[in-house]
Amino acid sequence: GVDKKILVIPGDGIGQEVTAWGQKVLMTIAENYKHNFSFDEGIMGHVAIEATGNPLPDETLEKARKSDAILFGAIGHAKYDNDPTLKVRPEQGLLKIRKELGLYANLRPIKLFDELLEASSIKPEILSGADILFFRELTGDVYFGEKKRTEDRNTASDLMIYHRYEVERIARKAYEAARSRRKKLCSVDKANVLEASRLWREVVQEVAKEYPDVETEHMFIDNAAMQLIKDPKRFDVVLTGNLFGDILTDEASQIAGSMGMLASASVGDSTGFYEPIHGSAHDIAGKGIANPLASILSAALMLDISFGLKTESLRVIKAVETTLKQGYRTMDIANKHTENHLVMGTEAMGAKVLENLS
Amino acid sequence: GVDKKILVIPGDGIGQEVTAWGQKVLMTIAENYKHNFSFDEGIMGHVAIEATGNPLPDETLEKARKSDAILFGAIGHAKYDNDPTLKVRPEQGLLKIRKELGLYANLRPIKLFDELLEASSIKPEILSGADILFFRELTGDVYFGEKKRTEDRNTASDLMIYHRYEVERIARKAYEAARSRRKKLCSVDKANVLEASRLWREVVQEVAKEYPDVETEHMFIDNAAMQLIKDPKRFDVVLTGNLFGDILTDEASQIAGSMGMLASASVGDSTGFYEPIHGSAHDIAGKGIANPLASILSAALMLDISFGLKTESLRVIKAVETTLKQGYRTMDIANKHTENHLVMGTEAMGAKVLENLS
Ligand SMILES: CC(C)[C@H](C(=O)O)[C@@H](O)C(=O)O
Ligand SMILES: CC(C)[C@H](C(=O)O)[C@@H](O)C(=O)O
Repeated sequence: GVDKKILVIPGDGIGQEVTAWGQKVLMTIAENYKHNFSFDEGIMGHVAIEATGNPLPDETLEKARKSDAILFGAIGHAKYDNDPTLKVRPEQGLLKIRKELGLYANLRPIKLFDELLEASSIKPEILSGADILFFRELTGDVYFGEKKRTEDRNTASDLMIYHRYEVERIARKAYEAARSRRKKLCSVDKANVLEASRLWREVVQEVAKEYPDVETEHMFIDNAAMQLIKDPKRFDVVLTGNLFGDILTDEASQIAGSMGMLASASVGDSTGFYEPIHGSAHDIAGKGIANPLASILSAALMLDISFGLKTESLRVIKAVETTLKQGYRTMDIANKHTENHLVMGTEAMGAKVLENLS
Repeated sequence: GVDKKILVIPGDGIGQEVTAWGQKVLMTIAENYKHNFSFDEGIMGHVAIEATGNPLPDETLEKARKSDAILFGAIGHAKYDNDPTLKVRPEQGLLKIRKELGLYANLRPIKLFDELLEASSIKPEILSGADILFFRELTGDVYFGEKKRTEDRNTASDLMIYHRYEVERIARKAYEAARSRRKKLCSVDKANVLEASRLWREVVQEVAKEYPDVETEHMFIDNAAMQLIKDPKRFDVVLTGNLFGDILTDEASQIAGSMGMLASASVGDSTGFYEPIHGSAHDIAGKGIANPLASILSAALMLDISFGLKTESLRVIKAVETTLKQGYRTMDIANKHTENHLVMGTEAMGAKVLENLS
């Protein structure tokens, strides 16, 4: 067995409800496979602002640095969304931890469980067989460029900026992944308008030369947003910047049936950071109806990517699959037209997966 | 009858093939309704670079200023897409004419013809009844902010910037439109991360107060990209910035069955500018298979918005509808599963619409 330190940060909204299930899955795996996972907890986001005034308290950051991997929930709160003038904001915590831990590569695998073929708004024949791995750059772009507001508050700006090395390192990671998949990489930018995108395209073209066995395609973001729905099967690995990646991966959730199914891994120099793609979802927070599967699948990604525990990771994915096969569904993935679905809340769904893990 | 000067700019790629049909429709309408439309032609984009070295020659701009409305085709060429280092680029022509003519509001109506319910990758029950009007801001944002490249060429940036008055004027236009529709407006931004979006949200919240009869919703761009596919019917008027609008409207083409069906109107202080949303589409250019309906529907928008000729505009839309009802389809909207569709090229399709106009 292996020894690993895991930091759990439930964060805001439904993060508080679903993250416990990712953790329980990790605990069950540790037990079943004789690993030694020790857990600590940290606060971040709106809950951290309420407790300390800081969306990412130093204590959390310190714990994060000392851990082998982090299981994160979600961030954000309606209060800040409704008041754009607030200076201290939950999301700053997430952006800061990404930057501080050097988590520059955000991997978002989009794959539909066969059982959910009917849960999507997209036609089954369009979806069936779609399997996309997004590489979203996570520590650059307009997210981290300088932000300005004039004194009269009438002009606001953010700098969209990329450096060669930032594009290079994530491009390499994406090409390596493409090599072990279907050997197709699509790089998404807006090089017909943006200078940062032209640099992006130049660098990807260069890196591409080191991977002649991988077929490279360059696509504009507007076209990609369209093609993703029109013909998701045309994509294998998709490589893109921070902002475009944010948009495309949320959109791609419709390929996986629901946002509630999507996990992501943020990796860089050391500690890996695992989180569902769904946000804090104020509208359903506290109701006990959130889908815990994205958190559970985030745990599976952690086992695979940070700990190299492939068998254990597949075991978790299998348990999720079995649960879906048995007809259990949370609200977001329930199909109104299928009678034999048992719709349940977060707790019941999480418990079913645990059962299927044993 | 009215007297109008129309400038036709076919531009690049399939723009050269489809724009002729938008023009022919305008000519037929003029004849049938005893209007006096005079036409002139201008060059822009790659074709203009080849001819003059300038993507928007002064002569074209002068003609544009003197015209009552402009019918435009498309812009862009693979040569520039493949070489991000080229300094003079076709798209600069389009961006410049938008700026010079003050075309700050880009209206993109997304409505599915019943006949095309099966042409989309989205399920018919999700689409049926969807009817969205996008207001995309068109002369600000990261499109027009300062672009920089360091001397060592290793760092590139674009400034995402908005001024209060820019947000205000398009917000008003969008609210006015919402009033005459279903009285719902969704403003899309990324206010949880971007300062420019926080200004955007503040200003829209202010303008909203002048329209208490319109229900306002604010949505993050990532969520909007998802909701658009998950539940397009929830949207009525969507108001957004230049970059997010570019992405969302291309994505929304899947709601209308195909990009080949979507027209847009860019308006501002005086001259209106009408163009299909589809681009130059190098991959099918010159093959005679492009869908002319988006250009024809752009002509319909011109009749309505720039000339106030509502009856004539509806007549054109009706002719398109009839053509679809008769089973005629270009490749992009043909449904492989329907036997009684007659698939045809640009010329034949355009001719059918003209027939149905008489
Ligand atoms: C909460 C927000 C800052 C974040 C982002 O935009 O990166 C989220 O949408 C995500 O995709 O992880
Ligand atoms: C060609 C390009 C500059 C343009 C844009 O991004 O605005 C196009 O995509 C559009 O939507 O009109």
